[in-house]
Amino acid sequence: MTNVNDEFKENEEVVMETPDNTDDIIESGEDTEEIEIVENGEETIVQELTEKLQEEENKRLRLLADYENFKRRATLDKEALQKYRAQNVVTNLIPVLDNFARALTVEATTEEAQTMMTGLDMIYRTFLQALEDEGLVEIQALDQEFDPNFHQAIMTGSDEDKPAGIVLEQMQAGYMLKDRVLRPAMVKVNE
Amino acid sequence: MTNVNDEFKENEEVVMETPDNTDDIIESGEDTEEIEIVENGEETIVQELTEKLQEEENKRLRLLADYENFKRRATLDKEALQKYRAQNVVTNLIPVLDNFARALTVEATTEEAQTMMTGLDMIYRTFLQALEDEGLVEIQALDQEFDPNFHQAIMTGSDEDKPAGIVLEQMQAGYMLKDRVLRPAMVKVNE
Repeated sequence: MTNVNDEFKENEEVVMETPDNTDDIIESGEDTEEIEIVENGEETIVQELTEKLQEEENKRLRLLADYENFKRRATLDKEALQKYRAQNVVTNLIPVLDNFARALTVEATTEEAQTMMTGLDMIYRTFLQALEDEGLVEIQALDQEFDPNFHQAIMTGSDEDKPAGIVLEQMQAGYMLKDRVLRPAMVKVNE
Repeated sequence: MTNVNDEFKENEEVVMETPDNTDDIIESGEDTEEIEIVENGEETIVQELTEKLQEEENKRLRLLADYENFKRRATLDKEALQKYRAQNVVTNLIPVLDNFARALTVEATTEEAQTMMTGLDMIYRTFLQALEDEGLVEIQALDQEFDPNFHQAIMTGSDEDKPAGIVLEQMQAGYMLKDRVLRPAMVKVNE
């Protein structure tokens, strides 16, 4: 499986090609015509065999084209599977990111609680790093132009100092895995 | 790609089979022998064509066997890829589990800190659940018989009340993804 990439370029459609040995078949055909004194049965056999040979070769070439297309598709499938392999688990971990985000907004008053918050923040950073290493990207929302591909508008607001269609506030963070949106950011948009 | 599973049973080796139309070839061969009055050239052509036909068919059958073996392997590869798809990210998240485990051993004295610990525990449970849904399993170690496949002995102890080779203490939790060990448990073993 490892050398499939080398053998087939991406997006290259494999089509049935004219084989190099077509000439052989044609020559054989010509040979039968050259011999003038032939038994009828003999001629039929030669013709039948020539036809069968061509048929057989066409079958093989169709099979080869199928095979190569299959290999090409298998490579692309495998690449996609590899690229988004973490999609399921990362999607299921988004609520954990939400929980962290909520917990980290709590204001600690005692020194004990502050130490705990520092610990929590450290765990969060390690967690986020591991997900980012796998391709997690937080969607940019605040002050960006509203884009329905990445943002979900759940409220509108009015701020005369900013252009219309600008994200005024982010209610919930959105995330992508590489180029795939796992969850859009929930936002408030300027009217 | 979806119907590959139906077409090929797992572990089924595809071998070159005698084709149904072998009879046709043999019949053709017999026909040429039946005709007694033949030109030498004709006979040669018929023989050559018959040989080429057989050769061509063999080529196609070898190709078919290759193709079916490739399909079978591709299916198995895909299944393995699917099964352990989360291995990389889950492995990278094990230190986060360790951090949680350490943080949760801290004893909270103030009410504020206790509330935080409850929050931390909730985040930990959600986190662990998402990983378990993906196939994460904590390795059983304490009081188990030491097994080098799952446990890494870093200390020995002596407890006369317990049999030799029993895990007395777990220093660090071990984890598996389904049936694959991601990290063995670090343990203290009874001499």
